[in-house]
Amino acid sequence: ASYNLLLLPGDGIGPEVMAGVETVLAALRETGIARFETETDLVGGAAIDRHGKPLADETLERAKAADAILLGAVGGPKWNGVAYDIRPEAGLLRLRKDLALFANLRPAICYPALADASALKRELVEGLDIMIVRELTGGVYFGEPKEITVQADGSKRAVDTQVYTTGEIERIAHVAFDLARKRSGRVASAEKNNVMKSGVLWKEVVTQVHAEHYADVALEHVLADNCAMQLVRRPKQFDVLVTDNLFGDVLSDVAAMLTGSLGMLPSASLGAAGDGGMRRALYEPVHGSAPDIAGADKANPIAMIGSLAMCLRYSFGLGEAADLLDGAITDTLAAGTRTADIAADGAGAVGTKAMAEAIAAA
Amino acid sequence: ASYNLLLLPGDGIGPEVMAGVETVLAALRETGIARFETETDLVGGAAIDRHGKPLADETLERAKAADAILLGAVGGPKWNGVAYDIRPEAGLLRLRKDLALFANLRPAICYPALADASALKRELVEGLDIMIVRELTGGVYFGEPKEITVQADGSKRAVDTQVYTTGEIERIAHVAFDLARKRSGRVASAEKNNVMKSGVLWKEVVTQVHAEHYADVALEHVLADNCAMQLVRRPKQFDVLVTDNLFGDVLSDVAAMLTGSLGMLPSASLGAAGDGGMRRALYEPVHGSAPDIAGADKANPIAMIGSLAMCLRYSFGLGEAADLLDGAITDTLAAGTRTADIAADGAGAVGTKAMAEAIAAA
Ligand SMILES: CC(C)[C@H](C(=O)O)[C@@H](O)C(=O)O
Ligand SMILES: CC(C)[C@H](C(=O)O)[C@@H](O)C(=O)O
Repeated sequence: ASYNLLLLPGDGIGPEVMAGVETVLAALRETGIARFETETDLVGGAAIDRHGKPLADETLERAKAADAILLGAVGGPKWNGVAYDIRPEAGLLRLRKDLALFANLRPAICYPALADASALKRELVEGLDIMIVRELTGGVYFGEPKEITVQADGSKRAVDTQVYTTGEIERIAHVAFDLARKRSGRVASAEKNNVMKSGVLWKEVVTQVHAEHYADVALEHVLADNCAMQLVRRPKQFDVLVTDNLFGDVLSDVAAMLTGSLGMLPSASLGAAGDGGMRRALYEPVHGSAPDIAGADKANPIAMIGSLAMCLRYSFGLGEAADLLDGAITDTLAAGTRTADIAADGAGAVGTKAMAEAIAAA
Repeated sequence: ASYNLLLLPGDGIGPEVMAGVETVLAALRETGIARFETETDLVGGAAIDRHGKPLADETLERAKAADAILLGAVGGPKWNGVAYDIRPEAGLLRLRKDLALFANLRPAICYPALADASALKRELVEGLDIMIVRELTGGVYFGEPKEITVQADGSKRAVDTQVYTTGEIERIAHVAFDLARKRSGRVASAEKNNVMKSGVLWKEVVTQVHAEHYADVALEHVLADNCAMQLVRRPKQFDVLVTDNLFGDVLSDVAAMLTGSLGMLPSASLGAAGDGGMRRALYEPVHGSAPDIAGADKANPIAMIGSLAMCLRYSFGLGEAADLLDGAITDTLAAGTRTADIAADGAGAVGTKAMAEAIAAA
């Protein structure tokens, strides 16, 4: 088989960690598992600098034509002053929306070698393995009206609108329950049905999808504020956690931080499976563009390379190749290879390039 | 002086911890500091059982007439089935809105004696003292439309609306900056200006209030998702944290959980200062109604009694009496008196009543 990947390195450390992906792809090509063609384009601040906007129309067309997209990171202080609608993040949001990538999968895994890096006590995070399933194309991110209006007296009024429909909640619920079946068979669903009507509908639809199709999976409802607390108090109680776009943004960041492995976590954003079987998908690290260390060969490429592993698994059905790659990451860490962010005392750390090469070799 | 307090014990452990307040009030009366008159009424599930709704109109009138309100907790499994608009929490939301209690102050303090109860490593939370200032009468909690509509095909569509005006943001910003001046002189303001228009306006107005009136205070803007991460990673970087109603709900719960003192934290919800000087105010513990231990004399009354201390300080200007009461709590803990939730091994724990009496005696 032959796969066509669009690489969008973006800003900050994005280009460096994406170079790590190319190193690994070269090694994967040698194994003969599959053919990988790549194209590279601009997104975020880099695209603003070139095109005046964070996602050029031709880039969007390329993204639609690709078998999968790998994205580095967007944003940085250089573009802090730009207007809301053209800031670097807007390019990412448009990609999610226009490609209908409604299911954001964010694993929060505590690597044993890094458990001590967690702010939490070791016993609370050792072995942690949560899969957050965040709705990504609805809610307050995209609902209309979304505007600031000036009143007669000169004061302003800002409005954002959270909208969810039965269909949007059903499809994300299916993703969560299907994943739970392959994992420990437990789903927690988080909303604020005591305050939000969208929370009322969320709970109702998730309950119904569960009753109709997934009686074998255990379902628990939890209020989003309590969920945030429980993530800190006893994170291992969760397996699959499904929630809306905004709560997912906050809760998945908390979960990622707990693991002590923030710089190591990948993510997948998936669309619906098309007629041909393959679904649109974008893979990106959970971490940001880290402008403070950009260009210094200091970034940890593992989250980006792990995102490639998710791509092999979820987009191309190459489960064995994904296992091989995840194994190479684990082995490289076990052999003591560390970038500065995960080196116990910063001493003996290798650079971005050397880490990618070590993984490719493994 | 004479003060008129409305006591709303509510549900679950509410009545027990409120009894602790009465014990302490009796002791305070003996000191001759002031006269305290109390009235007691129903709220939440208890009011649903009696009146068919969680806040009777006459209770609201009493609340408006009182010098301050003390509330225990609302809700419990008994009322889980009731409709959205009359569930126990709705009584609390109506109190906040109709009394215009726009400023929710939630201190997150790590009591040294309890630092080991935190999920975080001791060094990260020891000495932690954050004041979260949450906007409480705006945002997605109260914006219209807020509704579920049935579509032609039978599917549903739920809408919640987040609205913020310049005036709403200005007044909460003033509360935060004024508090910071009495503390360490630092404010962090959290929003999602990269996704929400209300976040754009929030940042703009907070920046302006700061520039015009509080140049002596240090202001930092932080995205809400990153803020949640930072609270876990390095909580002591925060002093005063100001944010909107929904982010405040989640972030203040995370901050409270970090301290290891969840059952010990009070809160104040304040309105604007009226002509006479006194502002409408409601004081309540951060913890919930804990139905599992209700009636068992096991609840920790310290959060409720600490809420009375906040009442003395913020509503009645009785700073010395508040210090006295806070000191009594600290001394009682230092003497080793513990309710079950904070006893190292559950052994030797005292009940709700005994704890309240120990504090009153101190
Ligand atoms: C960059 C930003 C728009 C984005 C979001 O809010 O979704 C980010 O925080 C994320 O979680 O991917
Ligand atoms: C009970 C509920 C309505 C309330 C809220 O969401 O504000 C609670 O979580 C709180 O923080 O006081």
